[in-house]
Amino acid sequence: MVLCTAQPFLVKINSEVELTQEKVIREFEPVFYPESIAIVGVSQNVFKVGSLWLKAIIDAGFNGPVYPVHPLGGEFLGLKVYSSVKEIPGIVDYVIVSIPREAVPELLDDCADKVKAVHFFTAGFSEIGDVSGYELEEELVRKAQSGGFRIIGPNCIGVYCPEGKVPYGPSGRIGKAGSVGFISQSGGIGEKLVELGAARGINYSKGISFGNGIDLDSVDFMEYMAVDPKVYIIGAYLEGTRNGRRLFTTMKKVARLKPLVVWKAGRTDVGAAAAMSHTGSLASPASIWSAALRQCGAVEVRSVEEMADTLLIFQQLGQWRGSGKGNGIAVVGGLADGGGGISVSSSDACAELGLHIPSLSMETRHKLTGILGQVGSILHNPVDVSQSGSNPDIIREALGIVLADPSIELVIIQEDAGILLKYFPMEWVQDINTVFVDFRASQEKPIVIVSPPGASDLQRLEIEQRLTQASIPVFPTMERAAKAVANISSYYQMQEASKS
Amino acid sequence: MVLCTAQPFLVKINSEVELTQEKVIREFEPVFYPESIAIVGVSQNVFKVGSLWLKAIIDAGFNGPVYPVHPLGGEFLGLKVYSSVKEIPGIVDYVIVSIPREAVPELLDDCADKVKAVHFFTAGFSEIGDVSGYELEEELVRKAQSGGFRIIGPNCIGVYCPEGKVPYGPSGRIGKAGSVGFISQSGGIGEKLVELGAARGINYSKGISFGNGIDLDSVDFMEYMAVDPKVYIIGAYLEGTRNGRRLFTTMKKVARLKPLVVWKAGRTDVGAAAAMSHTGSLASPASIWSAALRQCGAVEVRSVEEMADTLLIFQQLGQWRGSGKGNGIAVVGGLADGGGGISVSSSDACAELGLHIPSLSMETRHKLTGILGQVGSILHNPVDVSQSGSNPDIIREALGIVLADPSIELVIIQEDAGILLKYFPMEWVQDINTVFVDFRASQEKPIVIVSPPGASDLQRLEIEQRLTQASIPVFPTMERAAKAVANISSYYQMQEASKS
Repeated sequence: MVLCTAQPFLVKINSEVELTQEKVIREFEPVFYPESIAIVGVSQNVFKVGSLWLKAIIDAGFNGPVYPVHPLGGEFLGLKVYSSVKEIPGIVDYVIVSIPREAVPELLDDCADKVKAVHFFTAGFSEIGDVSGYELEEELVRKAQSGGFRIIGPNCIGVYCPEGKVPYGPSGRIGKAGSVGFISQSGGIGEKLVELGAARGINYSKGISFGNGIDLDSVDFMEYMAVDPKVYIIGAYLEGTRNGRRLFTTMKKVARLKPLVVWKAGRTDVGAAAAMSHTGSLASPASIWSAALRQCGAVEVRSVEEMADTLLIFQQLGQWRGSGKGNGIAVVGGLADGGGGISVSSSDACAELGLHIPSLSMETRHKLTGILGQVGSILHNPVDVSQSGSNPDIIREALGIVLADPSIELVIIQEDAGILLKYFPMEWVQDINTVFVDFRASQEKPIVIVSPPGASDLQRLEIEQRLTQASIPVFPTMERAAKAVANISSYYQMQEASKS
Repeated sequence: MVLCTAQPFLVKINSEVELTQEKVIREFEPVFYPESIAIVGVSQNVFKVGSLWLKAIIDAGFNGPVYPVHPLGGEFLGLKVYSSVKEIPGIVDYVIVSIPREAVPELLDDCADKVKAVHFFTAGFSEIGDVSGYELEEELVRKAQSGGFRIIGPNCIGVYCPEGKVPYGPSGRIGKAGSVGFISQSGGIGEKLVELGAARGINYSKGISFGNGIDLDSVDFMEYMAVDPKVYIIGAYLEGTRNGRRLFTTMKKVARLKPLVVWKAGRTDVGAAAAMSHTGSLASPASIWSAALRQCGAVEVRSVEEMADTLLIFQQLGQWRGSGKGNGIAVVGGLADGGGGISVSSSDACAELGLHIPSLSMETRHKLTGILGQVGSILHNPVDVSQSGSNPDIIREALGIVLADPSIELVIIQEDAGILLKYFPMEWVQDINTVFVDFRASQEKPIVIVSPPGASDLQRLEIEQRLTQASIPVFPTMERAAKAVANISSYYQMQEASKS
């Protein structure tokens, strides 16, 4: 069977799950797939955020009408500038607001019964820590409820949806449409995830930066992505929540439907204080969060790199879930000479993360000795293939033998491009990568590549891109690869355990 | 005062330290600064290891005579090939051996009273796990003792010395000469350190891969580098030792003289088994090693990345050692928009590693508010400068204020090139980096940069190179920067504690 990342996770909606798929999807359609967008705060200064945003949306090829709004009216980038939202003809799905906070209440009066969702880039609310910020937020929510629209933010970047041609914020970043969804309380972390997506081949169906989350909160977006058939994996960056019980109940439901990866920042006192200043989030002890996430069956990560790594491995490995009982991992190193130290250190990296590195069977080792020889070889697992002389045919044979071992469910290969390219030309190294690409397509056991940075980063990135396109996840260090494998394994183990 | 990485650590030799500097330096001169090199196992096949090695040494510009040796004699690369070592005229300082292990004893007879050091790339000794391997090693040591020469290896890459124009192994890798020394039981890890050195600006005075270490062992090389005035920092990758007591006594002495960074691999059962197959090293429990390293005052690291990071920060920060009591760290983020999430997550990363992130003084915060404003700013520490609009002048002013705070001893700056370059041209971003370079040169508090990979890696690498040349250490993630800072702090704290 050829593995394919395009196969959706099966989303079964039943009474226990209590998510009313259609209603939720309909409610969020104007947010993620708006038919029209207004941008409030577009001035003639092309470096102002509103103006950049307008240009970004046009450049992304957004299909529907885009309405710039500014009290002075006029024309900008060939579009009529409306002096107020009220003046725009008909209904507006999505309004992006980048104006001073003092002007916000009046704007919301204009939006009543006219728009479906209002997103505030505007900051200066509860996160500045004085009472007026909280009061203003409460006023905003009241106006939204009476005016029949939802609020995203304030203090955030809002929506990202490559399929709907909605770029991520005023930088205009937009990547390929894919199967990953992200929910981020931080606009900057959201942007980094989008950027890492472009760099490392993580393709998003949609994403949202929701900032202070005064109306639509992490929970709402999680519920939506849980039932959205286009999202297979959900990553969430959270600094806090105003309703912990509701969040945890939701996460438990969501994690049963699809992989949920959560990074709770503000774990330490200093971090929590920064979170308070950033999104007005209140601190809760890190240990409580970790325990709760485990109970929910969500995977906990602790950095933007680990979040990206984990989303990538879920995306690339598609429906693979191993046996669920401490999957057997083989580690292969020494594609060029010098696989000994890597064998030792990668064993440590995997074992310290609880991965199971079983000894290969006598038969497997016998076969490997036959093609690699005894001297200079380490064949128990890790397997050091340096005696192959980096010959792609011998590597193919050796890898085939390792993959055929019944105790092995996944192979991590250390491919140090910087070392290989010092001995061999790029074509030779690509012939070795062809072996990995072929095995990924022709059999079911996943291949994970560790491709460490070094002195040949241009070629290394070219190789990474090729492997990524072939649904092979690539990581810069053995530790990060091992952690990603441990994370995907732990997700399925938690789900398995919750069934019994 | 302008900080300069070229200032040597002060090496004081006294009776307590018991290292006889001159004798040791004289003994190792033929190894690290050989006047002549013979390569045994050079065939007419240019792809054989011996032939590659010969070419590598010539290409590196090695000054002294190089003698290829092969039983068939003849000529190769314009050099006379000697049929045996005996035939070479005069004394040979350093012999590189790449021939089958069976031929080794006879070769050593030829080396008696003729050569000063013999290095075996040849493998197939104790590491293959049968008795014959150990017996052969014992025979080699006996022959070395009676023949008046020292052995490096077997099963290793041997010497690296850019200053002496000796490249690292047959790949011919050679970088700039500098102040870092490495000692590696693994040839591959050594090669990766040399490669990372070229990529990240870690400049070595010398390095050694010593494999099974049957004669000259980690201890010998540590003793040498401890007294070598050209080496300021020592990094050691160890899988095991044949004499634990001697190693620990030595490490304690060495760590008092200069920073000693040790990576003990084979920490786990699987890793230890691989170490046995790799260099014939016997396992000892990881916890014992960790405790002993702490007692020695050596910094323990756990991956090749952490080793490189730690050597880099010691090299770049030169004589800086902070106050030694939980140095105050400031974190600055948000050079482009979106510094909030980074503020929260970097606080966590630093605090979880025990770094002290003190609140900035009221005066400092007041000044920062004056130039950055209140709304959208996080100014307690971490400092989010996103309200600067990425203006280099405002960033200069803000950074100056932070550096002037009396509780701050070191500043970590998150510079996300991928994010910045989406908004600003490269020249603009380089103007921001000029601020960092200027501060590094004009005042004493170190600046550490976090430069995460992403979608603009070409420009990012260009920036990294510029900062590195200005003695600023650059790390790819906040976690790794924080760990490197924690490592350098812990070294000086341990040394301080051992004095009292």
